[in-house]
Amino acid sequence: MNGTVTFLSDFGLQDDFVGVCHGVIARIAPTARVIDITHGIAPQAVLQGAVVLRNALPYVPIGVHLAVVDPGVGGDRRAIAVKAGDGRVFVGPDNGLILLAADDAGVVAAHELSDPRYRLQNVSRTFHARDVFAPAAAHLVAGVGLEELGPALAPSELIRLDLPEPELGRAQIGAVVLAVDRFGNIATNVRGEHLEQLGIGPGDRVEIRLTLDRYYASIATTFADEPSGELILYEDSYGMVTLAISQGNAARLTGVRTGDELRIARE
Amino acid sequence: MNGTVTFLSDFGLQDDFVGVCHGVIARIAPTARVIDITHGIAPQAVLQGAVVLRNALPYVPIGVHLAVVDPGVGGDRRAIAVKAGDGRVFVGPDNGLILLAADDAGVVAAHELSDPRYRLQNVSRTFHARDVFAPAAAHLVAGVGLEELGPALAPSELIRLDLPEPELGRAQIGAVVLAVDRFGNIATNVRGEHLEQLGIGPGDRVEIRLTLDRYYASIATTFADEPSGELILYEDSYGMVTLAISQGNAARLTGVRTGDELRIARE
Amino acid sequence: MNGTVTFLSDFGLQDDFVGVCHGVIARIAPTARVIDITHGIAPQAVLQGAVVLRNALPYVPIGVHLAVVDPGVGGDRRAIAVKAGDGRVFVGPDNGLILLAADDAGVVAAHELSDPRYRLQNVSRTFHARDVFAPAAAHLVAGVGLEELGPALAPSELIRLDLPEPELGRAQIGAVVLAVDRFGNIATNVRGEHLEQLGIGPGDRVEIRLTLDRYYASIATTFADEPSGELILYEDSYGMVTLAISQGNAARLTGVRTGDELRIARE
Repeated sequence: MNGTVTFLSDFGLQDDFVGVCHGVIARIAPTARVIDITHGIAPQAVLQGAVVLRNALPYVPIGVHLAVVDPGVGGDRRAIAVKAGDGRVFVGPDNGLILLAADDAGVVAAHELSDPRYRLQNVSRTFHARDVFAPAAAHLVAGVGLEELGPALAPSELIRLDLPEPELGRAQIGAVVLAVDRFGNIATNVRGEHLEQLGIGPGDRVEIRLTLDRYYASIATTFADEPSGELILYEDSYGMVTLAISQGNAARLTGVRTGDELRIARE
Repeated sequence: MNGTVTFLSDFGLQDDFVGVCHGVIARIAPTARVIDITHGIAPQAVLQGAVVLRNALPYVPIGVHLAVVDPGVGGDRRAIAVKAGDGRVFVGPDNGLILLAADDAGVVAAHELSDPRYRLQNVSRTFHARDVFAPAAAHLVAGVGLEELGPALAPSELIRLDLPEPELGRAQIGAVVLAVDRFGNIATNVRGEHLEQLGIGPGDRVEIRLTLDRYYASIATTFADEPSGELILYEDSYGMVTLAISQGNAARLTGVRTGDELRIARE
Repeated sequence: MNGTVTFLSDFGLQDDFVGVCHGVIARIAPTARVIDITHGIAPQAVLQGAVVLRNALPYVPIGVHLAVVDPGVGGDRRAIAVKAGDGRVFVGPDNGLILLAADDAGVVAAHELSDPRYRLQNVSRTFHARDVFAPAAAHLVAGVGLEELGPALAPSELIRLDLPEPELGRAQIGAVVLAVDRFGNIATNVRGEHLEQLGIGPGDRVEIRLTLDRYYASIATTFADEPSGELILYEDSYGMVTLAISQGNAARLTGVRTGDELRIARE
């Protein structure tokens, strides 16, 4: 069979973590295709990983979705595989990383990854991606049934993340930065409908407050709406309200990082 | 069919941009192979992307060549697919990025990417690689005809880049840096024949001027020609005259970046 | 045939070096699969590359193992292919990079890569990965016999690296840092049995001396054994004794780099 495994992690590409997991999958499921969604999640940033996985999912084939951002490796967090209502199967640590995406279509089954037949022979205490998760994903894509991997778990007892919601005031929105990309675009937990509720729309000017700093941006739909160098606030291609500089780098200008708070107010 | 899509961009690998495009291609053309030429083009550096694409092309299979460095996304630049005389098909923005390579074998047909059947259902205004270019490349490699993607364009009306030419004086050459690689090697727009015209050859010494700084280098054919730590000027594996340090990093020493100017003179 | 080529280098992913080699392999062996072990070896760090290749090997399919960390490119170092007793075939420069791994199963044959039929037509003096090594790996995975690539070499005359051994004193161990990973974990040439010889075991405290700095760490088996922020010394998933911070970055704290020396002593 020629199924697809997608793979997301915080491993980066400097080391051999990702390559070795590809090798493990290829040894177990030689004809499976592996698509790397990204390995650039910030180290141990479970929330960022969960948001990126959920956003990317509609664009990748239905298959086995391996995701590893795992600060609790070697401790007592469980290793799980979860099947969603749309046929997608997720493999990863039980720390909320995969549930944000899996819950969208509804979890129909969950199993703990405990059967030693579907792990590597020697399981280290610090690299479960290689020894537990990649083997499980490979066996699943090769046709092993979810229920063979270990005992069933009640979907309700799996760990879920609290996705921070924007604070909607009368005249401003309190936002949290969920991701900063390579171009310095700053994606927040605010969505287009939140701006609408404040009566803010295309062409309007807003004030952005970052602790002591204050910036002014125009509401735009794309970079080309404003001259090069101008700050814009736009709904990005995943629907997240995002601060950017047309042909520039907003993160470098503002120094903002994932997890920072900012306030958006009508000018 | 098992065609090849090559993919070059300025997306980097920190985010999910590249992975999501791979997913989009796999959903449309499940048996196509994707070869990433590089995603490390400097953000929005169209000229650098065009040069790297043209240099790499002879070494990759003939197929569909997807390239996205797209500062004008969402504005009025066109999205195009171009067929060259050697059978290669290029997909990207109409900003010169793909024409430098396509012109080498001559453009035999060009079409605008406007037919909604070959785009994703919802086209964002900021991520056309995912919504327009990757779908077009995938449909092309899956057998859709170029002419089905949209109206024909005259090859002569496509945007071309002005590749900066070196200034050849009697005793010196004015050069522009086209690329700096991971090893700190500094590739210029000068080619071997330009050095020959000045009567400069292997073993000669040259002076390199960078605004106020002055360096001395030996003309070499490879790093091993000079002791570790020595500056050399050599024709790199793509034929570009390049400044390097044997077993060292010339970019770190000199602080040079892409786009900088330098002068090469006989010592 | 559908063999596997694994690929490790110090090329990074910023430039097109890796992508072009993938292209060269695909042109010669269109159905081969390429697995990138990593391209993040520090520039010209042959020893680090050799250690990473040897560690990764048990986790990747048996196939052709291409590895290029090649500070002597263009000089008189030989280009070689080596067959090991377990059926693996290694391709790379004769500088010790591939021998550390190949020697584990015993070298059964070695040949110089000199036959022009299995190189690209024009061989540059600075990019043998593209012009010599990738073509050889591709021809091998496509079925060409090792002996066709060039004259046989005696296994004993191939270059080997001196892997630095830890210095075992009565009360302390002198160690060398072999690798620092993305998470800031500092892997040394010390193995678990060396700690045991000093009577150091789980739960014990040790002093780590780095020139003038002094740190204290607990012996642990995984990150979760200690509270967030605590220094631990543990055997990593490849069996290397490694200094880390639970949910933190030990390399950032200490400033340690590959090649640095440190001393481990019982507190």
